Amino acid sequence: MPASYSTNMRFKFPALALVVEAVIIILYAFFITYDDGANSRLALNDTKSPDPFYKIYPSFQDVHVMIFVGFGFLMTFLKRYGFSSVGFNLLIAAFGLQWGTLMQGWLHHFEDGVIKVNIFSLINADFSTAVVLISFGAVLGKTSPIQLLIMTLLEITIFACNEHLVTGILKVKDVGASMTIHAFGAYFGLAVTRVLYRPGLQDGHENEGSVYHSDLFAMIGTLFLWMFWPSFNSAIVENPDGQYRAIINTYYSLAACVLTAYALSSLLDKKGKLDMVHIQNATLAGGVAAGTSADMMIYPYGSLLIGFIAGIISTVGFKYLTPILASKLNIHDTCGVHNLHGMPGILGGVAGIIAAAMASQQLYGKGLILTFPEARTPIVQAGYQAAGLGASLAVALIGGIITGFILRIPFWGQPPDQNCFDDQIYWEVPDGKPEHEDLLSSEHGKQKTNAEP
Amino acid sequence: MPASYSTNMRFKFPALALVVEAVIIILYAFFITYDDGANSRLALNDTKSPDPFYKIYPSFQDVHVMIFVGFGFLMTFLKRYGFSSVGFNLLIAAFGLQWGTLMQGWLHHFEDGVIKVNIFSLINADFSTAVVLISFGAVLGKTSPIQLLIMTLLEITIFACNEHLVTGILKVKDVGASMTIHAFGAYFGLAVTRVLYRPGLQDGHENEGSVYHSDLFAMIGTLFLWMFWPSFNSAIVENPDGQYRAIINTYYSLAACVLTAYALSSLLDKKGKLDMVHIQNATLAGGVAAGTSADMMIYPYGSLLIGFIAGIISTVGFKYLTPILASKLNIHDTCGVHNLHGMPGILGGVAGIIAAAMASQQLYGKGLILTFPEARTPIVQAGYQAAGLGASLAVALIGGIITGFILRIPFWGQPPDQNCFDDQIYWEVPDGKPEHEDLLSSEHGKQKTNAEP
Amino acid sequence: MPASYSTNMRFKFPALALVVEAVIIILYAFFITYDDGANSRLALNDTKSPDPFYKIYPSFQDVHVMIFVGFGFLMTFLKRYGFSSVGFNLLIAAFGLQWGTLMQGWLHHFEDGVIKVNIFSLINADFSTAVVLISFGAVLGKTSPIQLLIMTLLEITIFACNEHLVTGILKVKDVGASMTIHAFGAYFGLAVTRVLYRPGLQDGHENEGSVYHSDLFAMIGTLFLWMFWPSFNSAIVENPDGQYRAIINTYYSLAACVLTAYALSSLLDKKGKLDMVHIQNATLAGGVAAGTSADMMIYPYGSLLIGFIAGIISTVGFKYLTPILASKLNIHDTCGVHNLHGMPGILGGVAGIIAAAMASQQLYGKGLILTFPEARTPIVQAGYQAAGLGASLAVALIGGIITGFILRIPFWGQPPDQNCFDDQIYWEVPDGKPEHEDLLSSEHGKQKTNAEP
Repeated sequence: MPASYSTNMRFKFPALALVVEAVIIILYAFFITYDDGANSRLALNDTKSPDPFYKIYPSFQDVHVMIFVGFGFLMTFLKRYGFSSVGFNLLIAAFGLQWGTLMQGWLHHFEDGVIKVNIFSLINADFSTAVVLISFGAVLGKTSPIQLLIMTLLEITIFACNEHLVTGILKVKDVGASMTIHAFGAYFGLAVTRVLYRPGLQDGHENEGSVYHSDLFAMIGTLFLWMFWPSFNSAIVENPDGQYRAIINTYYSLAACVLTAYALSSLLDKKGKLDMVHIQNATLAGGVAAGTSADMMIYPYGSLLIGFIAGIISTVGFKYLTPILASKLNIHDTCGVHNLHGMPGILGGVAGIIAAAMASQQLYGKGLILTFPEARTPIVQAGYQAAGLGASLAVALIGGIITGFILRIPFWGQPPDQNCFDDQIYWEVPDGKPEHEDLLSSEHGKQKTNAEP
Repeated sequence: MPASYSTNMRFKFPALALVVEAVIIILYAFFITYDDGANSRLALNDTKSPDPFYKIYPSFQDVHVMIFVGFGFLMTFLKRYGFSSVGFNLLIAAFGLQWGTLMQGWLHHFEDGVIKVNIFSLINADFSTAVVLISFGAVLGKTSPIQLLIMTLLEITIFACNEHLVTGILKVKDVGASMTIHAFGAYFGLAVTRVLYRPGLQDGHENEGSVYHSDLFAMIGTLFLWMFWPSFNSAIVENPDGQYRAIINTYYSLAACVLTAYALSSLLDKKGKLDMVHIQNATLAGGVAAGTSADMMIYPYGSLLIGFIAGIISTVGFKYLTPILASKLNIHDTCGVHNLHGMPGILGGVAGIIAAAMASQQLYGKGLILTFPEARTPIVQAGYQAAGLGASLAVALIGGIITGFILRIPFWGQPPDQNCFDDQIYWEVPDGKPEHEDLLSSEHGKQKTNAEP
Repeated sequence: MPASYSTNMRFKFPALALVVEAVIIILYAFFITYDDGANSRLALNDTKSPDPFYKIYPSFQDVHVMIFVGFGFLMTFLKRYGFSSVGFNLLIAAFGLQWGTLMQGWLHHFEDGVIKVNIFSLINADFSTAVVLISFGAVLGKTSPIQLLIMTLLEITIFACNEHLVTGILKVKDVGASMTIHAFGAYFGLAVTRVLYRPGLQDGHENEGSVYHSDLFAMIGTLFLWMFWPSFNSAIVENPDGQYRAIINTYYSLAACVLTAYALSSLLDKKGKLDMVHIQNATLAGGVAAGTSADMMIYPYGSLLIGFIAGIISTVGFKYLTPILASKLNIHDTCGVHNLHGMPGILGGVAGIIAAAMASQQLYGKGLILTFPEARTPIVQAGYQAAGLGASLAVALIGGIITGFILRIPFWGQPPDQNCFDDQIYWEVPDGKPEHEDLLSSEHGKQKTNAEP
């Protein structure tokens, strides 16, 4: 192990985590209070319950499940990296939601020196962690928890600024965040992993694969993401009919996406067999791609069409594009976030541009002004949508490159190449190494039993 | 492998899936639109929010979890068929909900040439997939994805017709669908598996069993079905007090069923040990059996009684009836759907007949006319209930037989006997066959270890 | 095996379960009816829907998931005790909720000879099972299902009395039940396990450890508990702003707790590695500790502070206190419930005392009388809070000791020492013993094979 790798986290990691948490508590003491509806002193002033949180609380919990179980288990497909996948996912999200509350509060609703938190704050805080979890998928197996905490801090800061620019200043519509979360998180993560490029992993790594049961654990993540995606895309829509449409559109987009992902997975295999990587990931592309236009009048057939295309490009991406990115551009994307969040996110942004351009008084009635803020003509709004997509991609790439260079500092305890994709470098693993290997990979079992001819 | 088995799906399966999806999109473009509450142009006409979808959206999501995680993981108990169980479950359900939306729409609420979809459409579409997933349990491990897509298309079509006959025309009460979904799906599936009878499997198959962790994966399915069953039985009840009763009744029926399923599982084993098959399945029979009468005034003790009986007959069925069906009638029921959905479904139908016959003005007050549509006397309604049960069983058996003969055409790529219950015929399985075996069955591991010096 | 161990449950267990269930049904027939909102005869009397159950039904389902999936899978970490963990959890909870409905009904809202059940009855019934499931964690692996049914009966009876004393008579605030459920369940279980002390397990047991995938199964439990804890702490809060605060406070307390649990887990390991035991358990201490004060005006920074401390004491407890309790006091706590529920429960009680003492008209406005019942001064309420904590601990310890002595009767079929922590004594385990062992632990596989003649 080169001297530059100092992977014992004993003091660095606890010190960072405790200091960060202490600073967060101090900042909360100064800046964060309850929104009026949750404030005993103010809630009684009007008896009409102005913020009926119980209407949206179930959607919040669905999003919560997507963040912690969905993303967490989706990444457990690696045979020896399950503890890290689900464990670092929890760490990133728990820290990220605290920091996200502050960043989004300061930028979006900072009044009289305080940020008032309500149910939408919690949902948006969860959303902000999703950005980092997507990027985490790109660097999965190659980073230390210290690096991940730093990435969380930097990425949520940059994300919140871009989000404020795109949805706050430019008034771009992106209710399901195809652009501001999915494409942003993917390209940010791809930029980071490019900067952290490891030539030693160019020819693959023995641990970078699944075993039978790790693939089943990953399906837990897939399914909870798939099922609750309608809540993700609808949770923060303000007008009720738009929220309703977002649920319906996302439901159908995801369903169509499953059919094309399965079809392409079989079609692209020379024996016609299905590939678990595609099923775990490409079936979700319909949720990503429906994000921007989810609350628009695209009709169920429009949603199906978006899902149809998303399932195809995602599966094709996993089959052909990921290997090319790795071999030609030195971009090693562990989970294939480019195929699940990157390209479908751009597709979602483009679908939003088209849907905005096709908006009309005839289609939306009086709801036009509710769906599209300000009195922009459809074509102007379409232009803003395009600007939002461009801004998200540009900020993500620049932010990811800067973050990547900061994470390259050897002090943060990244694993040496041979210990990548292996829990044992940061976790106590039951039964020690040999038994663990034997249980998880029979290839090793075979090697050990060298006695075979 | 006989020439008649052509299990390479490379072109047949993708072609079928893509064509089916394309046709669906075209049909949606012509027939499907948003319900008024989700239509920007119409939603603003009345400000009172006529369809407050957020009240029922959480129940929809519970049903959604039952369909995709519940049914999917329940079937992962087989040691080498987890990918197919959870993966084909997703495929069937994603296609089924699209087709179910159309079939139910055309039959139940086709007006002015369009079908308006709302939150109840999504719930009913999910319900329609449950029928197929139940039948899938009967043929699990013995069918190709192509056969499953065809079965989905045919079964949902026949189901929707029977549902329209029973609940639409005969005005039979079946809110939790003991008869129209559970009994229907079970007997349909039993008829299919009878027609597809494979003499080669008569003496059992080495893969038709569980390993330790596959049984734990199956418990994920069991528990999500068990917990959310009150939502399944109450989601589409129209009058609020009936919906409330359906939740309470199902909650207690399931609880009682657990006690009797555990008791019988121990009692029927000569060493008094519990059997995971019973725990995974028979504990759910209380939810099935409470379905028809869930919104009736059966009182909590009535619900407990239904669950008490359901747990007993289901466990006894698994122990004694399933082997007899297989050996005497050549009906091989992989998951034992006859015990979980078939007999408890009939029990539910019978409980509904009794509860309807015992209805009275004294018991229901003015709610009588809300609970039982039209001004039928209780005894007349009980007669209709019996007719609904009979119709569901008859249509299921006839429909299943016809479907079975269609699925017997060798072109659909069904697996040869020796490859049944094995993912590898339709999936890329990590590490190839020997490793896979080694991981899952340590018998092999031991054999190999013996070779150690 | 000593003659005193008669572990064949074939007649004892089924007889007990069936008799208990039959008695429950009779008691329900006499005592339990629907609340007015779910009663067809009464629901129509007022059209305003006085008990809008749909507002709280999603929170009920979240609690339901915590009980059945959360607690159930959290305990599957043991390598050979997964069937029992998730299976006995289901058995205890299904029986407990039926008995809890009766006990809580008789004590809290028994009017005109009947108990009217509504959505809050279901939530409270689920809560009552949580007490037993916490105690189950302390005796995990060392008790028979018969003992567990008896413990459920006794513990819920004692719990309901203490709950009535603390929250009903003393009017102590404990919305998230840090004291009445968590501390109570933990110290009750510790008392039981002390009385059931087995010298033969003093030096550890080969089965008392995890394997790689059992630790991942346990994370399913951890995450569902973690995510839905805001629902647990808020579900039964009556005033809307208090309920809203309980959600927000718990959300932040849990997030802070994750950071300190991870930090301490690494800090206390000599190689700085994370320990799955801490991640699975100590990350939840923030939810326990926020319970009593969840609906008070503690502000988000106060919640973070509670979580910060909870994560530290819980992790330190797992590292240092659990071994000391076992070696010095002969208290063997299988799951470490003292660290997850015991100490954090006391911390929660203390936080409640402080928060009550600091309450003021200035802080709460007119909401003061809603948050604190009756016109007590803050310092008087703080005294009552302290009394509630003391009562809960005292009743738990005394009740646990009595229950322990009843459970010591050899007739109940407890396992002999060498069969502890092993499913095979009460379950049919797939593939028989050798394969099972080999699959789960290759250390054993190797040892055994070597030793074989």
